Amino acid sequence: MDTKYGETLKVILKCLEDCNTCFDACLKEEDVKMMAECIRLDRECADICTFVAQAITRNSPFAGQILELCAEICDRCAEECAKHDMDHCKRCAESCRKCAEACRQAVA
Amino acid sequence: MDTKYGETLKVILKCLEDCNTCFDACLKEEDVKMMAECIRLDRECADICTFVAQAITRNSPFAGQILELCAEICDRCAEECAKHDMDHCKRCAESCRKCAEACRQAVA
Amino acid sequence: MDTKYGETLKVILKCLEDCNTCFDACLKEEDVKMMAECIRLDRECADICTFVAQAITRNSPFAGQILELCAEICDRCAEECAKHDMDHCKRCAESCRKCAEACRQAVA
Amino acid sequence: MDTKYGETLKVILKCLEDCNTCFDACLKEEDVKMMAECIRLDRECADICTFVAQAITRNSPFAGQILELCAEICDRCAEECAKHDMDHCKRCAESCRKCAEACRQAVA
Repeated sequence: MDTKYGETLKVILKCLEDCNTCFDACLKEEDVKMMAECIRLDRECADICTFVAQAITRNSPFAGQILELCAEICDRCAEECAKHDMDHCKRCAESCRKCAEACRQAVA
Repeated sequence: MDTKYGETLKVILKCLEDCNTCFDACLKEEDVKMMAECIRLDRECADICTFVAQAITRNSPFAGQILELCAEICDRCAEECAKHDMDHCKRCAESCRKCAEACRQAVA
Repeated sequence: MDTKYGETLKVILKCLEDCNTCFDACLKEEDVKMMAECIRLDRECADICTFVAQAITRNSPFAGQILELCAEICDRCAEECAKHDMDHCKRCAESCRKCAEACRQAVA
Repeated sequence: MDTKYGETLKVILKCLEDCNTCFDACLKEEDVKMMAECIRLDRECADICTFVAQAITRNSPFAGQILELCAEICDRCAEECAKHDMDHCKRCAESCRKCAEACRQAVA
């Protein structure tokens, strides 16, 4: 991708994918109750990732603030996912951490 | 990306990027009036691309219909962008055509 | 609201609210597993409601198809919510049915 | 609407509608170039309004930050729309100002 946010964008979109995959997988787990907060935060995180991807690619005057908010939501989602042992949670936690870092670098 | 829609997803996200880049560039053109329909369709297309990316990654039961709608909107955006000579329009038209094709293959 | 879709819009936004309220309440239920499909469909429905609200208000050339898709997703969410006795599910089912009807009337 | 954000929600949705109506009308103006910044900000504002409507109704843990961001974007859109004499711009500017105020009150 050839925008100035190209690399950031890839990381954001990987995060979107892993959050939604985790959301879907959590809903199919044996113990869904244990995953309730994860389901909620996966959705929060997938939605802000989509929002930031739109903002960046259309050269939004608010891209900076949206990136910062995305980093914060990623942090929280990573924290929750890290409490669980499922592969989908581990992968999601890692993608969220990378995404938070990439968003902060893009603002800096 | 490791979902069954992995390749489709990449093409969709390239289309999102090129539509929003075109939207931004059209708004900066000397003759904005000539680009009005392009601006409108870029937005339609970027939004359905985002919507389908969310639907696919969270394993939506409606992914098929959303992919079909995306293909139709991509066709229309490609048609409009193809009328203009700017690089951002040509690139957008090409991405839209590829995206329409990828969406139809994903449904088939 | 003063667009030609004014009444439709109100019903769509009530549906958005009741779907997301149901999503939130389901995640707090004692038996979350029983609500998994409801949680999934609430999200599908809230998202298409938002999408159609945007499409209608910006006079999208694709408003018709998006309204039809919304009606279909509302039907499915209403069907799932109707299986459960919680107030939030009953209210959501009713809003989804009304929304499906309003979307179909808007297209007709 | 019966959530604690009920009144706020109505104001947000009116803002969404007036921003998208303004977006559509600007694209049909004789002098589109003059409206370019308005078109851009209408879109920014409509999108954050949708995002905050979703966040509020699903009881997002990040509703506060999203409301603050929405207020800031509304301020900017109101400022731009206020420069133009068209009815759609005046109405949009007024709705944006009310929305900014409502968002700030909801956070306070």
